[in-house]
Amino acid sequence: MAQQYSRRNLDFMLKEVLKVGELTQYPHFQDYTPDMFDMVLDTAEEIADKIMRPAYVESDRKQPELINGQVKVHPAVKDYMKAMGDSGMISATFHYEHGGQQLPLLVNAANEFIRGAAHNSFVMFTGLTAGSAHLIYSFGSKELQEKFADRMITAEWTGTMCLTEPQAGSSLSDVVTTASPQADGTYKIKGQKVFISAGDHDIADNIIHLVLARIEGAPLGTKGISLFVVPKFRADDAGNYTIDNDVVSTGIYHKMGQKATPAMHLTFGDKDNSVGYLVGEANRGLQYMFQMMNEARLGVGMGGTYIASAAYYAALEYAQERPQGRRLTNKNLVDSQTFIINHPDVRRMLTFQKAIVEGCIGLLFQCYWWQDMIHGLGSDNEEAKAYQTMLDLMTTVAKTYPAEYGIKAVNEGLQVFGGYGYTEDFPLEQMARDVRIMSIYEGTTGIHSLNLLGRGVTANGGKAPQLLFAEVMKTVTEAKTHEVLLPYAEKLEKELGRLQKVTMHLLGLAAQGNNEVFLADATLYMELFGIITVAWQWLKQGVVAQNAIEQQAPTGDELAFYQDKIHTMKFYFHYELIKTLSLAARLLDTEVLTVLHEEVEV
Amino acid sequence: MAQQYSRRNLDFMLKEVLKVGELTQYPHFQDYTPDMFDMVLDTAEEIADKIMRPAYVESDRKQPELINGQVKVHPAVKDYMKAMGDSGMISATFHYEHGGQQLPLLVNAANEFIRGAAHNSFVMFTGLTAGSAHLIYSFGSKELQEKFADRMITAEWTGTMCLTEPQAGSSLSDVVTTASPQADGTYKIKGQKVFISAGDHDIADNIIHLVLARIEGAPLGTKGISLFVVPKFRADDAGNYTIDNDVVSTGIYHKMGQKATPAMHLTFGDKDNSVGYLVGEANRGLQYMFQMMNEARLGVGMGGTYIASAAYYAALEYAQERPQGRRLTNKNLVDSQTFIINHPDVRRMLTFQKAIVEGCIGLLFQCYWWQDMIHGLGSDNEEAKAYQTMLDLMTTVAKTYPAEYGIKAVNEGLQVFGGYGYTEDFPLEQMARDVRIMSIYEGTTGIHSLNLLGRGVTANGGKAPQLLFAEVMKTVTEAKTHEVLLPYAEKLEKELGRLQKVTMHLLGLAAQGNNEVFLADATLYMELFGIITVAWQWLKQGVVAQNAIEQQAPTGDELAFYQDKIHTMKFYFHYELIKTLSLAARLLDTEVLTVLHEEVEV
Repeated sequence: MAQQYSRRNLDFMLKEVLKVGELTQYPHFQDYTPDMFDMVLDTAEEIADKIMRPAYVESDRKQPELINGQVKVHPAVKDYMKAMGDSGMISATFHYEHGGQQLPLLVNAANEFIRGAAHNSFVMFTGLTAGSAHLIYSFGSKELQEKFADRMITAEWTGTMCLTEPQAGSSLSDVVTTASPQADGTYKIKGQKVFISAGDHDIADNIIHLVLARIEGAPLGTKGISLFVVPKFRADDAGNYTIDNDVVSTGIYHKMGQKATPAMHLTFGDKDNSVGYLVGEANRGLQYMFQMMNEARLGVGMGGTYIASAAYYAALEYAQERPQGRRLTNKNLVDSQTFIINHPDVRRMLTFQKAIVEGCIGLLFQCYWWQDMIHGLGSDNEEAKAYQTMLDLMTTVAKTYPAEYGIKAVNEGLQVFGGYGYTEDFPLEQMARDVRIMSIYEGTTGIHSLNLLGRGVTANGGKAPQLLFAEVMKTVTEAKTHEVLLPYAEKLEKELGRLQKVTMHLLGLAAQGNNEVFLADATLYMELFGIITVAWQWLKQGVVAQNAIEQQAPTGDELAFYQDKIHTMKFYFHYELIKTLSLAARLLDTEVLTVLHEEVEV
Repeated sequence: MAQQYSRRNLDFMLKEVLKVGELTQYPHFQDYTPDMFDMVLDTAEEIADKIMRPAYVESDRKQPELINGQVKVHPAVKDYMKAMGDSGMISATFHYEHGGQQLPLLVNAANEFIRGAAHNSFVMFTGLTAGSAHLIYSFGSKELQEKFADRMITAEWTGTMCLTEPQAGSSLSDVVTTASPQADGTYKIKGQKVFISAGDHDIADNIIHLVLARIEGAPLGTKGISLFVVPKFRADDAGNYTIDNDVVSTGIYHKMGQKATPAMHLTFGDKDNSVGYLVGEANRGLQYMFQMMNEARLGVGMGGTYIASAAYYAALEYAQERPQGRRLTNKNLVDSQTFIINHPDVRRMLTFQKAIVEGCIGLLFQCYWWQDMIHGLGSDNEEAKAYQTMLDLMTTVAKTYPAEYGIKAVNEGLQVFGGYGYTEDFPLEQMARDVRIMSIYEGTTGIHSLNLLGRGVTANGGKAPQLLFAEVMKTVTEAKTHEVLLPYAEKLEKELGRLQKVTMHLLGLAAQGNNEVFLADATLYMELFGIITVAWQWLKQGVVAQNAIEQQAPTGDELAFYQDKIHTMKFYFHYELIKTLSLAARLLDTEVLTVLHEEVEV
């Protein structure tokens, strides 16, 4: 299997663009020195190379099956979990008091990127376990933390998030799973949960489900949802987790991809014997769950990106080794064939992939950096509040753009392979199946687009986009000082104006009171927003690369790396940012909205 | 399984838009009456419903395997072939003298559409058999016709096309399979052919391979390629096909989709005992093969379209039956959930699918109609020559746009299902895998784009686009007479100007002599060309629909059908045609071409 990611690029992002070393000046990160961050990535590479990558194909071909109520997963999942637990990686970013090491999320993201590029499906086990343990530490009682979360971060037990029900997917207000209070303060849980990733398996003695349910008499909608810890096995009188807690695997989904992670249909309390433990206060469950959902959203954006990364390097290797045809400037049939990377169309496809991968890394790492800065400065700090506001706005974009464009990038990678790309002989076929879910996981593109336009850009009088645009302008201003970047800085500034114009236009529609017309093309608005903010990230990387070229006089591979950054940045502007012309024209053309979208209920 | 196509729409295309009945005025079609065309489609529906559709899922899950040199396919393939042979459908469009019925290709296309929507993989068996038999009738000796083709059109035997070799995919000039002349006038064939669809199976007693190979001493490149009939079994002295002809199945590809059709790696003449029969003259093989390739190219465009059709109707049915959430104008949680078709974003996705399916049908049926007119008028007729010129130009577009946009449309269909779309519980997962090959089969999008820009629009001083643009202007002129269509006619006229401007600009680059710069963005030019010509087809359908509304005063379902046509046409213009803004801006921005594409050989 080819290289799956560029360590040089991860280092560029961490050290040169986002200057992760500067985080160590804050008390939260004071125990770190920058070389410790390198060690984390070295460990990730070792786990990726030795345990994950060798199992990538086999764990797809032999997908988990539900047999006699039992689910068996690929044995390497267990090795992977053990390595992650032993190295402390599951809880690495948690506070010291929660068994963590207060590792910057930025470093953790690079760590995850390396692992995910090697095996995108395995990382779900650790991602879900970390996210659910974090939820218990953040909102659960000390007792719940000690009983459950402490055993999850060592990978002894694993975790899940149980939100979706057969009738409640995008519409969580329609959750009907019930929780009946018992005399001992626990609850009896009853209901169906579907699409529960890692919802059952044979790699741990217990599975800790974080379940959304309604306590009897709770208000309708999302304000009546509570959060419960519901283990697969609960404790007996001796405190051993031996009692079957009536969580039954009633089905397993056969998916297009991501096959190593079983997606389960779980039935809670069919025998009235499923005990749940309330997390925090009643009726605040969805609010709590948003912590895990937001973590998972960035995780899905990462998923789109690291699969696209693995696909890019596989396609690049193939293009460098596959001879086919002759250059368009050469008609001499006696000459041997050229490598396909010399065909402009193949180069265009490869550069597109690289532009998406590295642009999306920029967008996602920006979000992780904001979080680290909030931890560094403290959430009451004014600067931290601004970062939080931008993070709230951009999480939905950093989930959606990398998901959608990750799918496109992987498919271009497959196309580079021609017919071979469609076969199991090369990994692209699997990667294309794996990545397809990313625009659906953790809120579909349509749902996130409604979030962005209906809430993100409008909340608090549009404060979030104001702050964000000011950040973008900082990059534009800096870029203008470099002659080579000036035209790109001017382009981005113009695009920012375009985005503001479109936004104002749409808010004008909102003011007319018809939300269906206002939000009809939210998905296209999301694409516009994503393209422009990724262009921002590219310009930001361009500035750092150009500074390096001018100030460090690099040579050889180092010079080539920076020049390639500038080249790919230009490609992104000329080939991707230009799409805003059509998107904005579409969004500004109101007439059609009223023509096409004011329809009667079917 | 839901409906897979609209018979009403096929009838609209055949009877109202392209007026298939008028073909019967020509001697070539004089034995037909229009009701006979209906009967053909009725038969297709019966075969689709009874034999094909029930096997769609199972033949995917249990894919063919190569075991001890034998390939077994799903048993329904044999039933399908028999039904097709018995009904005369394999050779229906052939001349009477070639066992055919001189059925208009247009009617045959509708027939194929119905079958392909039911089972896109089964139609490959008949498509390849028909195409290879047609090749033998067109260019082979009477002896080859009687010995082989006559037994293929009854479905007793099947056919293949053997072009690709491990080192020669897109670059057919690099074919190295050899043909050594024997004293008896036959040839010994020796070489490897890969990706041979239906290259082996257990449903017929013989398989007739149409093989490209080089006769010893032939010129380099495509001018030294000859075409051979190479049967799996050749005749013994008694004329029975019992002798193993040394065509060995050395491998089977495991593909992402299209699994019911095995793609084989075949080895010819490993024991020096594979006999081939020359078709026509030596060194003209590729020229002959172009007949089958062009038929197959339109077939692949059809493939992208009929899978997208089946996906659209599945998604539409789901959207009409799946309750989720409430309308954006309704915040009342007491109300029951609405069907997802009432969400604007879902409607947008569905309308996109419909716009692609019906627009692509327009583009493809236009090509089939041109061929019918050539048969009707006779190829020496001046009008027929113009149709041939436009057909030559548009075949590459009618292959590529429906392939690329068919993939997009199926993926939007999957998205409508949310998480369920990613599972085997619904057919979209399979359809998305099946359709993915279409941009690779029969020349990748990149190769066809080079054809279009490098040859199609430039040949004979640009005669083909001149003729085509004049045809488009006829539609524009007609549309301008209707008030409701006038703005759309003006839009299309403007786009035609844009396309001409871009074309002239690119030809200017060509004149500068650097083909790599000239052709660097050929794929984007293809997309521009495709979008504008599909918009033409939509306007054409809009004119017919508007005429019907004004002249026939339809009511009920009929009125709804025509109104929906106008509505979908508008959608196409507002949401798809608008993409030309960015594409044209990109193509007119020459600076970047020289910046990004003048690179040294790797």
